Amino acid sequence: MPVAEIGRVAEFVGGEVTIRGWLYNKRSSGKLLFLLVRDGTGVIQALVSLADAGEEAFAAAAALSQEASLEITGAVREDRRAPGGFELTVHSLRPIGPSEEYPIGPKEHGTEFLMDHRHLWLRSSRQHAILRVRHEVIRAIRDFFNDRGFMNIDSPILTPAACEGTSTLFETDYFGEKAYLTQSGQLYNEAAAMAFGKVYCFGPTFRAEKSKTRRHLTEFWMVEPEMAFADLDDAMELAEGLTVFIVERVLERRRADLALLERDLTRLEAVRPPFPRISYTDAVERLKAAGHPFEWGGDFGAPDETVLAEQFDRPFFVHRFPAAVKAFYMKRDSQDGRLALGADLLAPEGYGEIIGGGQREDDLATLERCIEEHALPRSAFEWYLDLRRYGSVPHSGFGMGLERTVAWVCGIEHVRETIPFPRLLNRITP
Amino acid sequence: MPVAEIGRVAEFVGGEVTIRGWLYNKRSSGKLLFLLVRDGTGVIQALVSLADAGEEAFAAAAALSQEASLEITGAVREDRRAPGGFELTVHSLRPIGPSEEYPIGPKEHGTEFLMDHRHLWLRSSRQHAILRVRHEVIRAIRDFFNDRGFMNIDSPILTPAACEGTSTLFETDYFGEKAYLTQSGQLYNEAAAMAFGKVYCFGPTFRAEKSKTRRHLTEFWMVEPEMAFADLDDAMELAEGLTVFIVERVLERRRADLALLERDLTRLEAVRPPFPRISYTDAVERLKAAGHPFEWGGDFGAPDETVLAEQFDRPFFVHRFPAAVKAFYMKRDSQDGRLALGADLLAPEGYGEIIGGGQREDDLATLERCIEEHALPRSAFEWYLDLRRYGSVPHSGFGMGLERTVAWVCGIEHVRETIPFPRLLNRITP
Repeated sequence: MPVAEIGRVAEFVGGEVTIRGWLYNKRSSGKLLFLLVRDGTGVIQALVSLADAGEEAFAAAAALSQEASLEITGAVREDRRAPGGFELTVHSLRPIGPSEEYPIGPKEHGTEFLMDHRHLWLRSSRQHAILRVRHEVIRAIRDFFNDRGFMNIDSPILTPAACEGTSTLFETDYFGEKAYLTQSGQLYNEAAAMAFGKVYCFGPTFRAEKSKTRRHLTEFWMVEPEMAFADLDDAMELAEGLTVFIVERVLERRRADLALLERDLTRLEAVRPPFPRISYTDAVERLKAAGHPFEWGGDFGAPDETVLAEQFDRPFFVHRFPAAVKAFYMKRDSQDGRLALGADLLAPEGYGEIIGGGQREDDLATLERCIEEHALPRSAFEWYLDLRRYGSVPHSGFGMGLERTVAWVCGIEHVRETIPFPRLLNRITP
Repeated sequence: MPVAEIGRVAEFVGGEVTIRGWLYNKRSSGKLLFLLVRDGTGVIQALVSLADAGEEAFAAAAALSQEASLEITGAVREDRRAPGGFELTVHSLRPIGPSEEYPIGPKEHGTEFLMDHRHLWLRSSRQHAILRVRHEVIRAIRDFFNDRGFMNIDSPILTPAACEGTSTLFETDYFGEKAYLTQSGQLYNEAAAMAFGKVYCFGPTFRAEKSKTRRHLTEFWMVEPEMAFADLDDAMELAEGLTVFIVERVLERRRADLALLERDLTRLEAVRPPFPRISYTDAVERLKAAGHPFEWGGDFGAPDETVLAEQFDRPFFVHRFPAAVKAFYMKRDSQDGRLALGADLLAPEGYGEIIGGGQREDDLATLERCIEEHALPRSAFEWYLDLRRYGSVPHSGFGMGLERTVAWVCGIEHVRETIPFPRLLNRITP
């Protein structure tokens, strides 16, 4: 008997097939049992009758409880009314592993309870949908860069120095030396871009921030491209292209998952180029005009971003921030020395910043001064300064937060559901 | 004037093009200067003559030193004798960033010197070739699993408990609790496989081992697939398929890089299925027969693996190890209780283990006993035991070390060159 995944059961219509999976749900109607069986690739309705399955199998089916594992063999037919569109008339059934008092039922559970049972919660249809979208976003990101000649250069996780301040770093002992978990692969990316031209890293990054918001994880994945011979406009163009590519890919391949999440597709279909590009100074004016008090010179917080986002139907760039609120490596604007050539991409619908980046300082003397002004330990950055000593070139790049992007694409409230095992201020289990 | 990457210069033969890059090498022949320019996508020979380039550009070219950045415009023509197969007759030249006394020259440098300058060493042709093979291996791995319906489920880096002992863990403070950097995503993968059927994680893993060998990094990347409803044979079949796929892909797409590394291609072309599968007990007999002393019950070391590998022309499996030397979660062999259903894939040519895995214990009571026998903290594994409480099924998987695989495919001596910024016992910089 052929064994098939539920996702491929259409190939067996009119024939017999064996399916292995877990009981998702069960109901009875007179002398019939309707089993809803899932195997990770889909869900199928299995019809168990005394006549077709025999006494033993019928009794075994009747005894199955939620999330018990089983193997069933039967005849496949199309049935548009059935969940998934197919039905299996069971001829034989073999229970595999029991499941007594499965803790997650159809009733409402609190978030902490579900998070404590994350290893089981992953089996629910909503979590399936979100993590399938995540899978597709990851694939889209890698396809986008690989197909455009970017080299995947993995940056290190264990680093000797802080990239953007030390207060939010996880520290570990490295055979007697202090080491920190990376917050960004950017500095290493810059070295790699001088070697390979166009590169990206894509891995976990860490922030020991005491933030408890719906946008913060202490461990999250970030993709960071970096390009030699590229300026701020090139970085924005790349960021726009990537974002459009991701949304198109998910709309093309994960419509069923978006439907399950009740995502408003018109909002995603509006994600078309070109994205609006407004300067920081213009953004401040817009905030003031909207009656939202904001002083030129500060960094935007989530409420500010939300007010701005209400003015656009798609993601938009804010560029040329006050240099004082940005990282030491950002290049100054030659038109206005107060400004840094950075850009953030803000998602609509209040999802906030999903991309941050810009052009990097490529002048040795200026960068040396910036390191001094930011009171950073010069010796830790000597290798980074080397990139300006030996064939410095204009270069740009950005980082896109995977989980924030997935949360926006899915239209869900909190980033904690967008990663298989979230790490939060108060949570490192399971 | 069109700007082109060197890798695409063939499209401009007979026309003019602008190229941006770095000076890789320079020689003069009478009144001609030959610049070898690299941009990360390739190398091109640029011919600078007083007549074609003019006095100013000629003087600028003459003043360029190794790794200076520059922009050149000129006419492209095919020239089979030139490195890369094309030559550019320069009409204009613009120096961008100088490079005085570039530290890495054509002379021999010591390993520690090169590792201290890893951010610059990446620009050399040998490092390019190795890291391009790495890029291709990563792509092949992801394509292999994505195309076969495996879901990419990222496992967490920060974990509350040890998977395989605590002596080789990096520890960090997690807001007042102890946390450890992951050594393997397997336990989380098992939870995900019960939700999605077939999954893989692919990310950095950490071992604080005081090993200083050519096979050890403290931070390395590992891909770990896990399948529900799969046994030891299924795991070996998947591992064989993956290994063949990777080698074929690199042979297909990275021949020039393998040639630069002087890789013996006949050794890679021999990597065809089926791979030999010998039991641990058989392997011990083979060692003894080869005059290599080995006691049944011990774990293989690098010298043992090398002796075994000499007997095969391709990767081979050793399976069914003594349970005592393997991890607590391995399923016992029902035919012989002393044995665990594990399998290692050993690469030929002395590269040793590149894959380790097998079938997982799926019986609740047995697993509880194993946790006790290994003196592991039961409470930390309650969630893992849940996977056996709620619909347990036979399941299998493995981990493949990326850097060891790349070292073998490239035929190079040490894993330290297979990762952009290696982390070793005595090295966490740059």
